[in-house]
Parts: sequence; structure tokens; C-alpha cells
Amino acid sequence: MTDSFSNKRDVNELGEFGLIDHLTKEFTTNNPSTILGIGDDAAVIDQGDHLTVISTDMLVEGIHFDMMYTPLKHLGYKSVVVNLSDIYAMNAVPEQITYSLAISNRFSVDALEELYAGIFEACKMYNIDLVGGDTTSSPKGMTISVTAVGKTTKEKIAYRGGAKPGDILCVTGNLGAAYLGLQMLEREKQIYLSNPGIQPDFENQDYVIGRMLKPEAGKAAIEYFDKVNMKPTSMIDISDGLASDLFHICKQSGVGAYVEEGKVPMHPDTETLALKFNLDPITCALNGGEDYELLFTIAEKDLEKVKFMPGVFLIGEIIQASDGIKLHTTGGNIHDIKAQGWNHFDADEDKAAKQN
Amino acid sequence: MTDSFSNKRDVNELGEFGLIDHLTKEFTTNNPSTILGIGDDAAVIDQGDHLTVISTDMLVEGIHFDMMYTPLKHLGYKSVVVNLSDIYAMNAVPEQITYSLAISNRFSVDALEELYAGIFEACKMYNIDLVGGDTTSSPKGMTISVTAVGKTTKEKIAYRGGAKPGDILCVTGNLGAAYLGLQMLEREKQIYLSNPGIQPDFENQDYVIGRMLKPEAGKAAIEYFDKVNMKPTSMIDISDGLASDLFHICKQSGVGAYVEEGKVPMHPDTETLALKFNLDPITCALNGGEDYELLFTIAEKDLEKVKFMPGVFLIGEIIQASDGIKLHTTGGNIHDIKAQGWNHFDADEDKAAKQN
Repeated sequence: MTDSFSNKRDVNELGEFGLIDHLTKEFTTNNPSTILGIGDDAAVIDQGDHLTVISTDMLVEGIHFDMMYTPLKHLGYKSVVVNLSDIYAMNAVPEQITYSLAISNRFSVDALEELYAGIFEACKMYNIDLVGGDTTSSPKGMTISVTAVGKTTKEKIAYRGGAKPGDILCVTGNLGAAYLGLQMLEREKQIYLSNPGIQPDFENQDYVIGRMLKPEAGKAAIEYFDKVNMKPTSMIDISDGLASDLFHICKQSGVGAYVEEGKVPMHPDTETLALKFNLDPITCALNGGEDYELLFTIAEKDLEKVKFMPGVFLIGEIIQASDGIKLHTTGGNIHDIKAQGWNHFDADEDKAAKQN
Repeated sequence: MTDSFSNKRDVNELGEFGLIDHLTKEFTTNNPSTILGIGDDAAVIDQGDHLTVISTDMLVEGIHFDMMYTPLKHLGYKSVVVNLSDIYAMNAVPEQITYSLAISNRFSVDALEELYAGIFEACKMYNIDLVGGDTTSSPKGMTISVTAVGKTTKEKIAYRGGAKPGDILCVTGNLGAAYLGLQMLEREKQIYLSNPGIQPDFENQDYVIGRMLKPEAGKAAIEYFDKVNMKPTSMIDISDGLASDLFHICKQSGVGAYVEEGKVPMHPDTETLALKFNLDPITCALNGGEDYELLFTIAEKDLEKVKFMPGVFLIGEIIQASDGIKLHTTGGNIHDIKAQGWNHFDADEDKAAKQN
């Protein structure tokens, strides 16, 4: 019978993104309507007078979410929002989603109603139509796959690869909060597991936990760009952390960048908690992930337009590729920024190799 | 912590399609571009001068495929083809897919290369561009989610709901073969499990096993409709079995139908094997599933055009809803056709509730 269990080369040898590159290297795109395939936040399809952008995410119980501390309504909401985030990151407006679900018989109708209540809330909040999906049983756990479809134009679309030296690096909101939220939830889980009688103590941690369990996507930013008639030279959503996602922009744009530590926005609760957990706050902001803020670059000429953009922070600048990707610390030092979480592909790992 | 494990109402109470209807009953579609949401083979999005159709499928190891007898290359091929089948069933041309994968560390790079070789073959055969996806780890097993995107026009699109009394019921090829292929593979698996020394005996069963492991989608039929400038009044792909899929057409068109037993096409190997397994051949054709032939209805005026369609079989007629859904047996009797496999949602069950 078939030999699918052979353990010749481990996927860890190639790393997450190396694996995708390796497996898809023979694939070419042949249909004239395909403008962009693998390699950005979303694929791009030419519809004549406009573009369709398509993004898809898979969320696996035990890898991306933990049922111990993830209310199903929040899970439903977040699973939609993280996909919409990829569409907004193309400077496009999401309009439809398909929602597929594999569930074991552990889940009751009541549990699924909670999940769908969250999906419903997200669809209402972002004006999205649920247009299809596939619901099936699973031998174990829950797996979610969401595909989002959005619309934009050739003039508006923002890729990862358009940043140029001299461009200003911007982010739509504070970073590291979701990561600290996750640390809080994991800590309370461990306490609960060792003593189920103790009630979780989430006092004053509403903000960071909210950022983890119920993130929002960059709708307001895209609407602002449209209103002031400008577009970013490059854009990506921060799902893996500022460092990792900045690397994507730099690699695909063929540029370097520097980030000024003192300008990286952090919520006071994030900073306080980071110190409480003996973590360096800037490390949480750089490598935390799951914040779903938009990281984008603008040409200097658009600076006046972005200055008054609500919630935006200017955190650095694009430089020559040969100058690297650097952090200018508040202490006056310059460090290399390393993209963490790239070369792991363990079953325990909560990072995924995202192709678009 | 959260109460997602409560077992209040079991999903089996509602049945597969009942569950989807129940969970999505509050959802409405609000974007003007959304023409059709849940309820057909694919969702339909208005692009101005043409339509985009989108379909998605989720395939779970241990539910939809068994690694004991499914070569990964075949799995890659089939996972693409079953999605394209849904696009063809809308009388549309598939152009792009996204491919998402959750895999445990049991799978080596070599195993994934095999899977992607199959995906590559399917993309080449059907002229499809792989434009994205998401690859992540899984605590256990493999889950695949494929989304296919196709193109058609308002004039050409074929829904499930357009059949009218007097229309002729047609199918693009023989039925029941994939089901017998599955029976063969399951039998050999049991023999292998009880005595791994015995080599599988698949002599003369190439055809049925091929239909199970490497099905093809209805590209030729859609090209023929285009060539002779006609469109079916309704269409669906046969994934759950002729009976179940005919029920979808009848329900959504508000009609009844009769099928003439003697006209239902079966391959000689299917009939021989059915008898060997003590199964009624017509039952295999009606309820077998996974054949991925297209079931469609045509107006009587188009009969001349369809008569010369390669591989097509005229198997019955659409009648009034009040006359029911009937089988006219070769013995001259009339039986009700029952749609089997609708009301199960067990983890062991290899049927899924497909929303589009």
C-alpha cells in the first residue's frame, strides 16, 4: 500500500516559506486573468475594469487556537477578521467570504451557534456576505478554512513589493498587545490546569486579551486612503510580527529599512505586562504577531496626507537593501532586526507558512 | 473557562443540510456584487460584464480519504478536480485555485512533493493557476481546503433551480464506478490489515479503482455546450450520488423527476463487481457518489444538440413536483427514489454537508 509515512526529509529542513517555495516551484500561471499568484497577502485576478483579490487562511485547533480560553463566538469573529485583514492589506475592500469547517462530534449545535454568532458579527461589522463553504466531520478537533474575496482597481492595489528608499514606514496602531494577551491567557490556563478551583485573574488585562481574542482589521485605513486619494507604495498586515512582516516588504521590494524603537507604538498595558513577564517590550512589538495592524510605506510627497490619518504612527524609513534592516534604539545603538519564527514547522508551533 | 464542550444538542438531530440552514439562517447578502450565496455548487459574484463563481471543499484524512490506499499524488489530483467539478456544474470555466493544507509532522517533504505533483498534474490538465493558499501544521493527520474560482456570463450560468416539467434529464457518464472502487479498496485494506503478507488483488479492477482515486471533472461537457451554443436549464455535479443530487435539482427547481432504470449508464466492471459484492447495481448508481459526472436538464428544443454530445446519456424527465421523484424499473414498476446519506453527521461518516 502507499508509502506516505516515510520520513525521508523533514519539513523543518526547508522552513515554512522554503517549503512553499520548494513545493510550488514548478507552478506557473497561464490564465491571462491571473495577475498575481503566490507571494503577497492575496492573489489578484483581472476582471477587466477592476481587480478581484482573494485570500485564504486555515486555522487548526491546538495550533492556532486553544479551546481552553477561546470563546467560540470570539473564534468565529477572529477567523473572519484575520482573512479580511489580508484583503485590506492589498488596499482592497472585502465583500464576500466562504467559511469551511471540519468538526468532531465533540461540538454541539449550541457550540456551533456561538461560532456562527461570531461569524455573523464580523460579517455585519465589515459588511461582508457569507456566500458558501463546506461543513464536514473530523475525527478530532476543529479546523477552519476561510477564503475572503475583495475588490479594488489597478490604480489602487498595494503590493508588498513597491517600497523605495526614502519612503516612510507607517503602522496603523500599537503592537505587541495580542502577544501579551496570549501570555496572560496561557498563564491562566496553566494555573487553572494545576488548580481548577482558582478563578482566572484577568483584572486590568481586558485590553491585551481583547487584542488577542477579538482583533480588528484595517477597514478604517483603507477608507482613509480612498478619501484622501492616495495609496501606500507597499503594504502588509502584521500577522507574524513587525520584524517578520517588514522582512517580507524589504525582500519583495528589494530594499532595506530602519525602525526607530522610540516610535514603535505600544499600549501602556502592553509595556506594563511585558515587564511583569520579564520580557523586553520592543521584542514583544517586533516579534509578537497577531496584532493585525497594517504596516505600509508611503512616498514622501504623501506625508501631509498621512500625518492626519487617525491612529497612524510613522516608525521608520526605507533605505537601500545594502544598508540592511535595522533597529535604531532609544539608547542610540543600531541593531540588526531578525525575522523570528521563520524556520519552524513543528506540530507545536503556532506559526503558519502563509502563501498569501 | 469557556464551555465549548457542552453536549446539549447533537448535530445529528438537524442532519447535514439542516445544520447549515440552521446556522446560516440569520445571514443575508448585502453587497450588490453578490448574486448568489449559499445553496448551489458555487457562489456567484457580479463583475459587470461577466460573473465569477467560487466553490470550496474541505477534505479530512480519515473522513474523506484513507492514507492506507490513497497515493498522495492521486489525492493531490482528486482534491483539485472535485472543486473544479463544482465550477463546471455552474457552466463556468475554472481558472484559479487556492490550496490550503494542515499537516502533522508525520508527513515528509517527499510525501508533500508527491501531493503537489498531483496538484500540478490537475492544474496542467484543466489549465488552472494555483494562486495561493495556507500551509500550517496540524496536531494530527491532514486536512485539505481548496477554493476554485471560475468565470462565466449571465447568459451561460446554470443553476440548480432552473429545471421545468418536460425537460430531459441527462448525465455525462456512467455511475456507481467510484463506489465500487471504494468497496474494492476497503476490502483489500481489511485483508491487508489481517495479513500484511498478502499482496492486494486488484486484477481487472483498474477501471473502478481509477474512478475512485482519480476522477475527472466535466470540462468536455462545458466546452460542448459552448460550441453548440446551448445551456442546460439546471445542472449539478454528482458527488453524493444520483439520487441525492437529483433531489437538490428537484427541490430548488420546485419540480419532480423520473429516472428510467434501464437508461442509467453503468460500466460493465461496475455491474460485475456490484453483483460480486451482493449489491444491487442500480442502488450503487443511485447512491454511490463520488463519480463527479454532471447531472443536467435540457429543454426539449435542445434535444438535437445534446443527442450528439459525446458520452451523454438521457436518463429521464422532469415532471411536476406533485408527481414526486421516481424510478421506473426495467421490470415495469415505479418506486420512490430516496436521497440517502442526508441525515448523518457522524465522525465516521464519509459524507459532508456541502454548502456550495
